[in-house]
Amino acid sequence: MRLDVVTIFPEYLEPLNVSLVGKARARGQLDVHVHDLRQWTYDRHNTVDDTPYGGGPGMVMKTEPWGDCLDDALADGYDNGAHGPVLVVPTPSGRPFTQELAVELSERPWLIFTPARYEGIDRRVIDEYATRMPVYEVSIGDYVLAGGEAAVLVVTEAVARLLPGVLGNAASHQDDSFAPGAMANLLEGPVYTKPPEWRGRDIPEVLLSGHHGKIARWRRDEALRRTTRNRPDLIERTDPKAFDKKDREMLSILGWAPGPDGRFGPTPDAVEE
Amino acid sequence: MRLDVVTIFPEYLEPLNVSLVGKARARGQLDVHVHDLRQWTYDRHNTVDDTPYGGGPGMVMKTEPWGDCLDDALADGYDNGAHGPVLVVPTPSGRPFTQELAVELSERPWLIFTPARYEGIDRRVIDEYATRMPVYEVSIGDYVLAGGEAAVLVVTEAVARLLPGVLGNAASHQDDSFAPGAMANLLEGPVYTKPPEWRGRDIPEVLLSGHHGKIARWRRDEALRRTTRNRPDLIERTDPKAFDKKDREMLSILGWAPGPDGRFGPTPDAVEE
Repeated sequence: MRLDVVTIFPEYLEPLNVSLVGKARARGQLDVHVHDLRQWTYDRHNTVDDTPYGGGPGMVMKTEPWGDCLDDALADGYDNGAHGPVLVVPTPSGRPFTQELAVELSERPWLIFTPARYEGIDRRVIDEYATRMPVYEVSIGDYVLAGGEAAVLVVTEAVARLLPGVLGNAASHQDDSFAPGAMANLLEGPVYTKPPEWRGRDIPEVLLSGHHGKIARWRRDEALRRTTRNRPDLIERTDPKAFDKKDREMLSILGWAPGPDGRFGPTPDAVEE
Repeated sequence: MRLDVVTIFPEYLEPLNVSLVGKARARGQLDVHVHDLRQWTYDRHNTVDDTPYGGGPGMVMKTEPWGDCLDDALADGYDNGAHGPVLVVPTPSGRPFTQELAVELSERPWLIFTPARYEGIDRRVIDEYATRMPVYEVSIGDYVLAGGEAAVLVVTEAVARLLPGVLGNAASHQDDSFAPGAMANLLEGPVYTKPPEWRGRDIPEVLLSGHHGKIARWRRDEALRRTTRNRPDLIERTDPKAFDKKDREMLSILGWAPGPDGRFGPTPDAVEE
């Protein structure tokens, strides 16, 4: 997979040399190109922004540096055999970036990221490249960043770990929060490792029982406990057929009950944090 | 504000030297301490993880290095006059990190981040420090990362830009997506700057009109258009009293109508992307 990132803070992308993404690059699974947008400016102040048409606070990133830089990045990619680019635009106005979208992007051969600063990029840049390739405007969450670079690190990491051969142990995917399967829509509960006692704190006895069925049940109960507390929305939108008899007992203990449509919701007795 | 980060990838936190956060550090508004967890290991392999009790794939981060490192970071902070620490634990099992939570954290004098790798940290570490300080287990979104470091960069940046004096132009906050006020619950629409024509693309005429009322209306219509498309959930949960007559006209054009409870939702004619 080829990745291009256009930014005025190339040094913010240093983490792409580290850890999982860094190793994937070293193994040749990722071909990363970070472009300093200011190299595509033509005045001596290297201006990338100007005041917004129509007035208002903040500055807008100018069309020309983005257009010229993206053209050069595309030409370089095509010259080197890349194909099928998509533009990934991190913006608080985008659609939510989810694990499903990470999977979709992981199947593309070439991602081009345009992390912006200030009030964002002149819209005509997006409109222009949308005529040539798919554009994903994505938001990584309901909070405001100073720029899109942190979002690029997030999206890149979420995508890279899904590429074949990047994660050592493929089994690790399966128990992920948000992974499809038995734990779909449930958050993972607590985990423990040696020693069995630390600062007077023991591990839950069941984990030493060697009884696989009991351990699986305990983990699912803990997952239900954590999900009702931290992400009630995930339980509420789960098809109630996904809950077995023991799940329903646990949900009842936690103060959750099925509503008129069968879906579970908290009762006034729901267990608080 | 003091920030401590404990990690096995200190170099991943390099972006804390860059841009807004880097400048805030240079001005003395942020006092950042990154700790390499492996320095609190005592075997020659610098082991930080072990197999999970109860079996299953993946590895769990051990109690001792975390406990010893956090104790030292806390002692150093208190020795240097810091007070009121809170523990911020990035985890996909946490509650959603939102702008509201960013505001809450920006009012604390001392944040200690514990970005984990593998299947997470032995639960007893969180339980231990929860007896001494508030703990925020937060998830930055519904996707899976390779570790919590990218989440630390996200949270740090969202928090730092809210600190007094960190953002140059305080007015910039007000038009933020997710900011309280007239645009609450609406995504920002497109922005434009000079030149008025680029690659045959003009800017919307209204922005050259000099008519503030018309420009404000156009911006709000574009915000409604983008929000219905990318974040229908935001419109659906908005108190319909927040929509004026012109908003309702625009929502109707976009194919949205009030339901039995007065809240707006898409009709079968809703405008598709």
